[in-house]
Amino acid sequence: MPKTVAIGPSSFAEKDPTPLRMLEAAGVVVKPNPFGRRLSEAEIIEHLQGVDGLIAGLEPLNRRVLQSASPRLEALARVGIGVANVDFDAAKEFEVAVSSTPDGPIDAVAEMTLAALLSLARQLIPTNAALHRGEWTKSIGLGLRGTKVLLIGYGRIGRRVGELLRAFGADILVCDPTLDITSALPGITVVTLDQGLAATDVISLHASGEACILDRAAFAQMKPGVLLLNGARGALVDEVALLNALESGIVGGTWFDAFWEEPYRGKLAQVDQAILTPHVCTYTEQCRLQMESEAVRNLLRDLGLQKD
Amino acid sequence: MPKTVAIGPSSFAEKDPTPLRMLEAAGVVVKPNPFGRRLSEAEIIEHLQGVDGLIAGLEPLNRRVLQSASPRLEALARVGIGVANVDFDAAKEFEVAVSSTPDGPIDAVAEMTLAALLSLARQLIPTNAALHRGEWTKSIGLGLRGTKVLLIGYGRIGRRVGELLRAFGADILVCDPTLDITSALPGITVVTLDQGLAATDVISLHASGEACILDRAAFAQMKPGVLLLNGARGALVDEVALLNALESGIVGGTWFDAFWEEPYRGKLAQVDQAILTPHVCTYTEQCRLQMESEAVRNLLRDLGLQKD
Repeated sequence: MPKTVAIGPSSFAEKDPTPLRMLEAAGVVVKPNPFGRRLSEAEIIEHLQGVDGLIAGLEPLNRRVLQSASPRLEALARVGIGVANVDFDAAKEFEVAVSSTPDGPIDAVAEMTLAALLSLARQLIPTNAALHRGEWTKSIGLGLRGTKVLLIGYGRIGRRVGELLRAFGADILVCDPTLDITSALPGITVVTLDQGLAATDVISLHASGEACILDRAAFAQMKPGVLLLNGARGALVDEVALLNALESGIVGGTWFDAFWEEPYRGKLAQVDQAILTPHVCTYTEQCRLQMESEAVRNLLRDLGLQKD
Repeated sequence: MPKTVAIGPSSFAEKDPTPLRMLEAAGVVVKPNPFGRRLSEAEIIEHLQGVDGLIAGLEPLNRRVLQSASPRLEALARVGIGVANVDFDAAKEFEVAVSSTPDGPIDAVAEMTLAALLSLARQLIPTNAALHRGEWTKSIGLGLRGTKVLLIGYGRIGRRVGELLRAFGADILVCDPTLDITSALPGITVVTLDQGLAATDVISLHASGEACILDRAAFAQMKPGVLLLNGARGALVDEVALLNALESGIVGGTWFDAFWEEPYRGKLAQVDQAILTPHVCTYTEQCRLQMESEAVRNLLRDLGLQKD
């Protein structure tokens, strides 16, 4: 009997059918998301009846859901990095293999970080708005060559941001408590957080975890006018301290893609020097395709349907 | 008697005094721009009395001006690439050496081009505006890896843009009638204009001259939704054909920094998908310093004051 795979994310294979074709080529029966939106607990319980594998989005995959799908459900493959929606203890108990796609978002997040940095450095948003209003006013921006950039966190994404910045001729400083120094590439200077905050023109967050790294004391150490980039997590930054630093000019411009609560309705939205995007760092055609393909490969492997 | 050097550009050494110090260290008497703005013909004639060398901006350096400054004026060094404000025949006749700084703007123009491309690809401007209005709406953008980019013109700046795009993993196509094929770097595909227009997701102009390259027929060949970048010259593109292509969706987004007339007050300012900047491609701190320092070195050489 062919295996059945349920699809969680409503956008799966929407732009490019390749991941769906990969499932079909492996001989599985595909059960699409019937609602075209994120499924509730009751809906995912229903959706998983008679299913061997799940291509998972952010629907709740808690103990009740996994128990209800047991014993038939063998594997779930998350399209994305985060697996906070999965109860790992329950998955182990009910023998459901869990995988995710940590490599897929690297390019997309790094490119969005560069997009935000270059826009801030060249004042693209206010300058464009002024010219659309008929105002022709030139101002001097910041070039990247020789500009000191502190990367806080030097995992997959931090490294890729560093690679791109090196192509622009920036000076890269890295702060990462877990860093294996011997893995640092040429052109990278490893620093403590204190050293880095005091020395750099740009700070970019690529850390994991939920601990606050940039609190009031940290902002007090920064060079006036520093640009702060956050495509990682809102919790890494104290929101009130950031708002004060923007008002006093310590932070000259900032970009946030991840927030303390989402959808974000906070005070940063009233600050002109803040570029804000709605958690879309991974939203590129290439990234979706890469993550979806990687999730399909993971799921086929865990279902014993891998070709090689 | 020490030589006297007049300063044309009102912004010379404004952000960084290094170029001024270089002149002083060479023992010349510096005569600053007395008006703090671009000088008229009458003003530059007056400013050049008793002067051996000029650090030149965009003030008119025509036959009358050069004749009036003769025979004492030995050299003028333009801070920038363009020398359309200099009468070369008159300079030759009155034995005034003329130099410019073609290398200074490379990084600044290339970085601005990437800023505009990444902003368009990730819809940064409309997405940021929406979130500042409280709208949390995600949309899928374009990643650069594997994206086909046509560079029209492959001189100093086109090559640098190509280098940066390669770091992002883009596929680079180049169209340049003056290209020495053997000088093409690995990873570059040389194409005709027709081949390039039909094949690419992004078109970036880096050509010299004033001839129109992208006319109505050229837009008709492009892939629907193409992104068009122009940090070079307005005249390279037919404005009406561009407006039609934006309206019909052939061009999905565009960036212009150089216009058909400046200050620009035309219809492109009413188009949301157009990012517009007021001819500020070279306006970075690094670029100004690099061009000013290069102009000072050129002038000291032409005045026989070079140290080595």
